[in-house]
Amino acid sequence: MCEANAYVLKNDQEELIFEKVDRVLPHERGLLLQDIFGRQMILEGRIKELALVDHKIILERIEKSV
Amino acid sequence: MCEANAYVLKNDQEELIFEKVDRVLPHERGLLLQDIFGRQMILEGRIKELALVDHKIILERIEKSV
Repeated sequence: MCEANAYVLKNDQEELIFEKVDRVLPHERGLLLQDIFGRQMILEGRIKELALVDHKIILERIEKSV
Repeated sequence: MCEANAYVLKNDQEELIFEKVDRVLPHERGLLLQDIFGRQMILEGRIKELALVDHKIILERIEKSV
């Protein structure tokens, strides 16, 4: 299986937020992540970087304007 | 190996533009795609969607303002 783990960049550190991700889809609030079991998570962010052979998806949160 | 193929959406069709992609990195002109052999391609676009079990990366071109 070629799923990957999703990380969010936080202070230049990669923080694991979701494992075994299959699909990442656009969502009105950012991104919809779905793992290989069909579990879903919504993140207010965008995809920054991929390293698929390392099974990594790097995301970044969208800064909210106040 | 868990590389994927990169497609660009064009008129709602997925057009294959780069195969066996390992890494996708931010680049000043958009995205830098690198395949498992180290070959590189720059695309003025962004990542729209991932379907990793299907080995697909869906990209969209950035519209240029005239």
